[in-house]
Amino acid sequence: TDTVRKESVARGAGFVVGGMAKGAAMLAPNMATMLAVLTTDAAVGPDDLRRVLRSGVADSFNAMSVDGCTSTNDTVVLLASGAAGPPGDMAAFETAVGEVCLDLATQMVADAEGHTKAVRVVVTGAASDGEARRGARKVAESELVKCSWYGKDPYWGRVASELGSADIEFDPTRLSVRYGELTVARAGVTVDVDEAALAAYMDQEWIEVTADLGIGTGTARILTNDLTHAYVDENMGTS
Amino acid sequence: TDTVRKESVARGAGFVVGGMAKGAAMLAPNMATMLAVLTTDAAVGPDDLRRVLRSGVADSFNAMSVDGCTSTNDTVVLLASGAAGPPGDMAAFETAVGEVCLDLATQMVADAEGHTKAVRVVVTGAASDGEARRGARKVAESELVKCSWYGKDPYWGRVASELGSADIEFDPTRLSVRYGELTVARAGVTVDVDEAALAAYMDQEWIEVTADLGIGTGTARILTNDLTHAYVDENMGTS
Repeated sequence: TDTVRKESVARGAGFVVGGMAKGAAMLAPNMATMLAVLTTDAAVGPDDLRRVLRSGVADSFNAMSVDGCTSTNDTVVLLASGAAGPPGDMAAFETAVGEVCLDLATQMVADAEGHTKAVRVVVTGAASDGEARRGARKVAESELVKCSWYGKDPYWGRVASELGSADIEFDPTRLSVRYGELTVARAGVTVDVDEAALAAYMDQEWIEVTADLGIGTGTARILTNDLTHAYVDENMGTS
Repeated sequence: TDTVRKESVARGAGFVVGGMAKGAAMLAPNMATMLAVLTTDAAVGPDDLRRVLRSGVADSFNAMSVDGCTSTNDTVVLLASGAAGPPGDMAAFETAVGEVCLDLATQMVADAEGHTKAVRVVVTGAASDGEARRGARKVAESELVKCSWYGKDPYWGRVASELGSADIEFDPTRLSVRYGELTVARAGVTVDVDEAALAAYMDQEWIEVTADLGIGTGTARILTNDLTHAYVDENMGTS
């Protein structure tokens, strides 16, 4: 069950986009849905609203994977009252919608049931954005990697192994991996790192792991969580 | 680490196929490989050996998913000494190789680290064998479903949810689910079941869950395990 309110607001020139969401990922009582409602006072037609929302969802709700389990009935809605008139700058409106979506998705991951960490998995240097997305998702949904985050273990071999079996262009000798700004592997080889700083970083509630494939310019980001004893506890029973 | 020897023998008319394997799934020290070696005294050429082994692997090692994490270096080898001369019946030889592969894969799942149960996920009535395989894998790799097996919980809603989001032809009103021979859902509706018998079944080390989609004739089977506290313990650290 959600433990905090999830709300977000983005203001543009002459309009406001607001949002609220419900969801502790797929973990609320018995396959609960993710539910998000965005509102705006901008006067925007259905076609534009649909396009703008789809774009905003792609990099936020659809780039979130708490446990890899897709609900069959997630819902996100964008309502426009039109009270503020048309937005002067449609690109700014699109940006605002995207910001609200990402903010809400981030709040969901931070409130996911049975987790100790929220994790941003970033893949850069892939052959394409699509390949980056596939790789990032493979890492984010790996039970082994998620367990190691829970153990605050910055070992990068599991990340490399997931990327190497993600069915994307991959060359282990070009791979760099860093946690936050602390590089743990370069050109596929472990590098010396300030162990105390790394341990302090891995101890945080939010961590970011970046894998650069060194191949192209494709990038992607997935929000996820660690896999914990509490997750197992909460999901051993369904009633 | 493996706790038991994994060996298998199948005898045909005039030949023997033997096999041995190593692997507690992906869980042995630091991404250990699965390793399997099969031997036979049959005189069979490389092309036939390759074909026969590929066929045997498809429904055994490649139909096993302990934790969804694919090693980058699994190996299976089939060696033929030729001492027994050519097998009179090539189909029987193929069957024997398949039996040894499946037996070894089954032994691996039964010895997987950090698990309390081995599970056979069977999907029948799918639009095609490929769709059945996709559905079975989705169920077998679902963290939520794997946790509920650990909790001995026969709730079928999570199984239905995974099948419904597996991107295959699916109609919830045609779905039947049974654990062993105990049907828990028919036509998408929970059915009365002998609770004591069901509890006794869920308490076993090996369980089988069968989901019939009621659409076509496609079938598939995946061997897997439950997701447990011990799995998290063993994989929190990598060293």
